[in-house]
Amino acid sequence: MTEFRQDPFTRDWVIIATERARRPGQLPPTRARAPVAPHSADCPFCPGNESATTAPVYERREGATWRVRAIPNKYPALRVEDSTERKIEEGRFIGMGGLGAHEVVIESPSHNLSLDALPEAQVCEVVNALLARFHDLRRDVRLKTIIIFKNAGTVAGATLEHPHCQLIATPVVPPEIRRKYVVAAQYHDEMGRNLYRAVVEDEIKAGRRMVMETEHFVALQPWASRVPFETWIFPRAVQSSFGHLHGPAVADFAATLKRVLAGIVRAVGHANYNFVVHTAPFEDEHKEYFLWHLAIMPHHSIPAGFELGTGIYINVARPEETAAYLRDLVK
Amino acid sequence: MTEFRQDPFTRDWVIIATERARRPGQLPPTRARAPVAPHSADCPFCPGNESATTAPVYERREGATWRVRAIPNKYPALRVEDSTERKIEEGRFIGMGGLGAHEVVIESPSHNLSLDALPEAQVCEVVNALLARFHDLRRDVRLKTIIIFKNAGTVAGATLEHPHCQLIATPVVPPEIRRKYVVAAQYHDEMGRNLYRAVVEDEIKAGRRMVMETEHFVALQPWASRVPFETWIFPRAVQSSFGHLHGPAVADFAATLKRVLAGIVRAVGHANYNFVVHTAPFEDEHKEYFLWHLAIMPHHSIPAGFELGTGIYINVARPEETAAYLRDLVK
Repeated sequence: MTEFRQDPFTRDWVIIATERARRPGQLPPTRARAPVAPHSADCPFCPGNESATTAPVYERREGATWRVRAIPNKYPALRVEDSTERKIEEGRFIGMGGLGAHEVVIESPSHNLSLDALPEAQVCEVVNALLARFHDLRRDVRLKTIIIFKNAGTVAGATLEHPHCQLIATPVVPPEIRRKYVVAAQYHDEMGRNLYRAVVEDEIKAGRRMVMETEHFVALQPWASRVPFETWIFPRAVQSSFGHLHGPAVADFAATLKRVLAGIVRAVGHANYNFVVHTAPFEDEHKEYFLWHLAIMPHHSIPAGFELGTGIYINVARPEETAAYLRDLVK
Repeated sequence: MTEFRQDPFTRDWVIIATERARRPGQLPPTRARAPVAPHSADCPFCPGNESATTAPVYERREGATWRVRAIPNKYPALRVEDSTERKIEEGRFIGMGGLGAHEVVIESPSHNLSLDALPEAQVCEVVNALLARFHDLRRDVRLKTIIIFKNAGTVAGATLEHPHCQLIATPVVPPEIRRKYVVAAQYHDEMGRNLYRAVVEDEIKAGRRMVMETEHFVALQPWASRVPFETWIFPRAVQSSFGHLHGPAVADFAATLKRVLAGIVRAVGHANYNFVVHTAPFEDEHKEYFLWHLAIMPHHSIPAGFELGTGIYINVARPEETAAYLRDLVK
């Protein structure tokens, strides 16, 4: 059975084609994680090698050692020393300087433990570091939004093994975020409700794609999942921005993230995944249209020609089935 | 130096960040192609194993053997036996049946030669097979467009080694194609000109991103290239649809494609790439807004968290430099 499903947030389609899972050689081999030592002498993020990184913009210390550090990326995609003035090149093309910021949050001194395996208190340190950097970067009025993301595992795009998250602040609203925002605003214009909250409430009632609920958070697999075990975490509170996360909800978010990631790593048999925090652009944070969320996409196969050309993902698993499986694992 | 560049066809941004090319471990190792035998006893696409595939929908024979074959995909993402009626699921979500078609064009009997290495006459056979299948599938009035694409090399998403192209016909206009089409129509409304032709004419004059020109085709690297050596091939004729390709231009297209692919494979040091043919939706083929083109993206790094969340690619090379390099190679 094959079906099209429309993502209610982007209005893009995905194809759910479960038979394609049977293709020979298609499923990535279940790679046992090669044993990684807790410390690597060559790793710029490991304790003792602090001089190999740029100076920290955030550091939480405990006695003689640090627990979590944030540093500017040594090879940044964007930098604060630039301008957003548009330049018309060769009479036609629009360009501008690479204004922005690109930072790395080193999750812990441990070279071999990431968010799925670190103690809850340490995951909480990471979330606090991300919040602190978010609030600080947000003060630059030239910037429009911050993308918080993690590439875990080399096959999911990580270039350094030591577990880390990244923040990139951009001087334009990125097209994917603009598109989601436009759909959310239009829905609110039509229905007088927040689209994300409406979907989350429906999903809680239906239950079929739910993964777990806590006091402050809801984890579920979206109707139009793009890859097997794609999972999103939403706050219950009406918060358009990740920057609104505060108080006891921080520890709850950290615990939820850890449990969901640990469940996904067990379910798919490897620790290669990407996550991205979707948050309203700064200038729209005060509006009630959006709900920030963290979207986890385990690495499955490489988006190839068809996805690149169409924007349509082909998913070989039905979220109703993978959610039921994950629900048991996170109990 | 880092800069933002806007893609004039989608209005998306890319970041050109050449310093990131220096990141340790970032550039994919130049993999010598492991020697592959010209025939594989286990390969369903190799001569002698024809019974392992579905029955061909197109076959060009020469004496006792075939030169090129098109077959329905054994594990199709979409099938013709379904409907496009929209279903509202659980009171909110939109879904529909997996109507469509998914076919494979086996490029030649050779297990180890692809379009960059096959003789020009054989590449021409492949283009003719793609055209024949395009015209045949196009007759189904329920379908909106056909995506022709190729995933070459396992790291670029190929699941079978034997060189092949694919066609997927969809009953909806895919979001990426709709977005490009809307921008093109808007430009025509404003300027009274075809956006693609305007850009191609400017690029020929500027010359900085040109790769090669033939009687009927122009190959260039786009201003807002997403990966190093991304290269597009455009017809000189006013053709909105790949289906308009005919006559002597077919052989010219085959020769251009072969030369450009061979140059890219030499330049990047591996044969892992994706290409996609962008063509106007069937119902808009008679309009003058669009220009079909084939876009080649050599595999570089995996689009990861940032690209997934924002739609913004980070390219570590400047197309002006890679185009100059490729220009010399295709001479």
